Amino acid sequence: MLEIFRTMLLDKTLAAPLYLQLYEAVKNLIDEGTLVAHSRLPSIRGLAALLNVNQITVVSAFKRLEHEGYVYSKPGSGTYISNTLSLKGMTDSGGGNIILDELYQQDDLPFLTSGQVTLNENTINFASATPTSDLFPIDNFKVVLNDILDRDKGNAFSYQDIRGFLPLRECISQMMQKGNIKSNSENIQIISGAQQGIDIISKALLNQGDYVITESPTYTGAIAVFKSRGAEICDVEINKDGPDLNVLEYNLKKYNCKLIYTIPSFQNPTGHSYSNLKRRELLKLAERYNAYVIEDDYVSDLDFDNRGFVSLKSEDKSNRVIFIKSFSKIFMPGLRLGFMIVPSDIHGNILEAKHTSDISTSGLIQRAFDLYIRTGFWDKHFSFMYDIYRERYFKTVEALDSCICDGVTYFKPGGGLNIWLDMPYGFPVGSLFKLSSSNDIVFAPGRIFYSNNLPQRLNNIRLSFASAYTEQIRPGIEKLCSIISSLQQRQDSHRNMPIL
Amino acid sequence: MLEIFRTMLLDKTLAAPLYLQLYEAVKNLIDEGTLVAHSRLPSIRGLAALLNVNQITVVSAFKRLEHEGYVYSKPGSGTYISNTLSLKGMTDSGGGNIILDELYQQDDLPFLTSGQVTLNENTINFASATPTSDLFPIDNFKVVLNDILDRDKGNAFSYQDIRGFLPLRECISQMMQKGNIKSNSENIQIISGAQQGIDIISKALLNQGDYVITESPTYTGAIAVFKSRGAEICDVEINKDGPDLNVLEYNLKKYNCKLIYTIPSFQNPTGHSYSNLKRRELLKLAERYNAYVIEDDYVSDLDFDNRGFVSLKSEDKSNRVIFIKSFSKIFMPGLRLGFMIVPSDIHGNILEAKHTSDISTSGLIQRAFDLYIRTGFWDKHFSFMYDIYRERYFKTVEALDSCICDGVTYFKPGGGLNIWLDMPYGFPVGSLFKLSSSNDIVFAPGRIFYSNNLPQRLNNIRLSFASAYTEQIRPGIEKLCSIISSLQQRQDSHRNMPIL
Repeated sequence: MLEIFRTMLLDKTLAAPLYLQLYEAVKNLIDEGTLVAHSRLPSIRGLAALLNVNQITVVSAFKRLEHEGYVYSKPGSGTYISNTLSLKGMTDSGGGNIILDELYQQDDLPFLTSGQVTLNENTINFASATPTSDLFPIDNFKVVLNDILDRDKGNAFSYQDIRGFLPLRECISQMMQKGNIKSNSENIQIISGAQQGIDIISKALLNQGDYVITESPTYTGAIAVFKSRGAEICDVEINKDGPDLNVLEYNLKKYNCKLIYTIPSFQNPTGHSYSNLKRRELLKLAERYNAYVIEDDYVSDLDFDNRGFVSLKSEDKSNRVIFIKSFSKIFMPGLRLGFMIVPSDIHGNILEAKHTSDISTSGLIQRAFDLYIRTGFWDKHFSFMYDIYRERYFKTVEALDSCICDGVTYFKPGGGLNIWLDMPYGFPVGSLFKLSSSNDIVFAPGRIFYSNNLPQRLNNIRLSFASAYTEQIRPGIEKLCSIISSLQQRQDSHRNMPIL
Repeated sequence: MLEIFRTMLLDKTLAAPLYLQLYEAVKNLIDEGTLVAHSRLPSIRGLAALLNVNQITVVSAFKRLEHEGYVYSKPGSGTYISNTLSLKGMTDSGGGNIILDELYQQDDLPFLTSGQVTLNENTINFASATPTSDLFPIDNFKVVLNDILDRDKGNAFSYQDIRGFLPLRECISQMMQKGNIKSNSENIQIISGAQQGIDIISKALLNQGDYVITESPTYTGAIAVFKSRGAEICDVEINKDGPDLNVLEYNLKKYNCKLIYTIPSFQNPTGHSYSNLKRRELLKLAERYNAYVIEDDYVSDLDFDNRGFVSLKSEDKSNRVIFIKSFSKIFMPGLRLGFMIVPSDIHGNILEAKHTSDISTSGLIQRAFDLYIRTGFWDKHFSFMYDIYRERYFKTVEALDSCICDGVTYFKPGGGLNIWLDMPYGFPVGSLFKLSSSNDIVFAPGRIFYSNNLPQRLNNIRLSFASAYTEQIRPGIEKLCSIISSLQQRQDSHRNMPIL
């Protein structure tokens, strides 16, 4: 630990007091994730000696860090790093990443974006839809990385094929056959994560003023891309079996929409899945109105109830579907790796857009992941993650069933990573977020998943169980329900107060 | 080698003959770089036994590969992989990458984009402005990669700070001080290569119909981005001491240009550098007309004549310069890593654009490169590369001085990686390219560096010495000059032919 501080430079000639410089430096190391949650800071005496400053300087810096929630002290033991939910630095443990990610464009939630929400060691994280880093298969990935460096040497760092490393594309094509999706190495495009996929498609297909249909609510990262491209959003409300196709058709016709962005299975954030009938109808509409469909395969393979949905791409006879899949949710979000299956008539545009975006995705990561699949590590890791997520899903549903409060309803998605709760009309979700955060429970307020057109009833919350440990789920939901009840009682008592 | 073929699946039930399937599979492995140049293919008997096919099948596949230049045979020794310049697959050895990269959007050079140009083991590559993979410091990079996996474990694969890994930003900020560029961890943005930097800036600053000033000729990857954003290009011819600032000002005024894209030192492709006076004048113009300037620091540090140019960013008092630097030219192009220094008033827009592009750059690569700098590997590798490039530069200049043909002129840039030759009016550069390629010498035809507005006299060629080995340079240039002479004589004899 002292090693990290040895290179820290405090400048006595600057106007800023030394304690503030030290505070800033430590804060940055925490924001960054270099200092990981619950690790112990050096002793006051040790750090003062190392940096050649007064002990008071260190005490003052630590006090300020503690006041702001960056660290906590255990009497007689020392000072420890908190698990901070901060916009500035993504946290180290995978906790709070996705919520921050999705909150990034939200400026109307000051209590979130000010970085004042702190995840400490007791926090139950229902906010993040990504695995925690303790589940990352680092040891096996290290093996394949070293094998690749020995095998491919400099080739791993030359410019790569824009489409991606061929053996990886072949591997993926074989994997896709299991889901009855026909693809080949020619129509697979490797991308640096699903977000880049959406960005590349937008560059290839959208011009300023074009219209895009999205579900409502939906993944905010997609909306941000479409808006950045100057496109207009037509959002269509998503129901339990998918969007209302009459409304969708109305928009397609009226606005001559070029693109439909969908997450057909276990949608983010609602967990809803399109019925197989609606999937086929959607494809017909896309063909009739000459639109492309993005099928964002968020987590279709986490199908705990064996609902066996048909992939849009597998039914895509007229070549209208662009299939996107990221490896973040099952593997490691920071890997920045995913792929698309691209209709042949837009393949040239997609290649050009990928090329102008970043030339190609890291060759080292592609080659390592290819070997990771070929050695069988991927299949094993998928089973491992599936079992963990499945257990957490059923724990969550069970806990909700047994302690859900009056007026709160929810939908059992049968798979995925998220459960979408409907609160009673007028329920103060913002207050719930604040109150539960201070009680060490975090979740994603529903409003962050809407584009500009906010619905009248903004009373949802998204509970993700990807980052909540199995043993935390029941106590977490019980506590959350009791906070909801207390807020409802407070509302009721206000309502029942006689008007004087 | 056999290992690679073991997983190759030939399908006897398909209509395509087995030899064609085998030919396709091997071709793909070559295009991809999995089979590296000059490595030997398995024996015909061995491969036939492994794949359980007739030996005739293997012979037929190899013949077709040889006919198309993918492999060559050495009698009594076996069949070897050629070094193929192919658009489909970037080559394995760093040879021919950049030219392909820059040729990517060119569809009027059929002899290049058809992939018919083959680099064999004797080819002298004056086309690529990137190092060859034999110069990549793989062993040291492997050490830091392993250290990072041991040190940071899962944190290396969590979502990262959108701006980049903080310690790396701090490292870079210190490196920049050597060039008198003031920066700090707050205004440095890590990017997945310079190309992504240009793309992000365009997203942050440009809307459809906006005007951008570029040098002419310039890096084609930049032009492709601006056009993809719907911007219009005003190109200003670059002279030996930079662009004509009167013309530049005229365009700024007339078109209300928002952005000026520059490569002020050892420009790509011309090697020209702005005088320090022009640099300061340019900054004044940018301020007067409220434009931002991209300073693409291509290879300013390869300053072999110690010309000591001042960086635009170091003089940027009014915060108008966005500084971009990639590590590709000195380090490894496939690393996909670079950084920008961003003016504070557009920092929010840049962050948002980075986020919608790919959320963040690979944490593993960032952390490994940070450690690579901190352990001193980077400084040593830079010196190593500087010495190699310096030697090649002077060899190139010396050879050109002693054997340049009549009517051909060139400019000594004093640094960088490229020399720009001016051929006599009407000289057939396309024929030269074809003829010299078939004589095992490749270079980049000048026309690929122009946007739509082609100048009347398209008679330049760019010679890069980054991928040409020192001992190849003199014989290569002698041969090139003799081909130029022969083409000139042919032209002369045509001209002197009496009109009958």
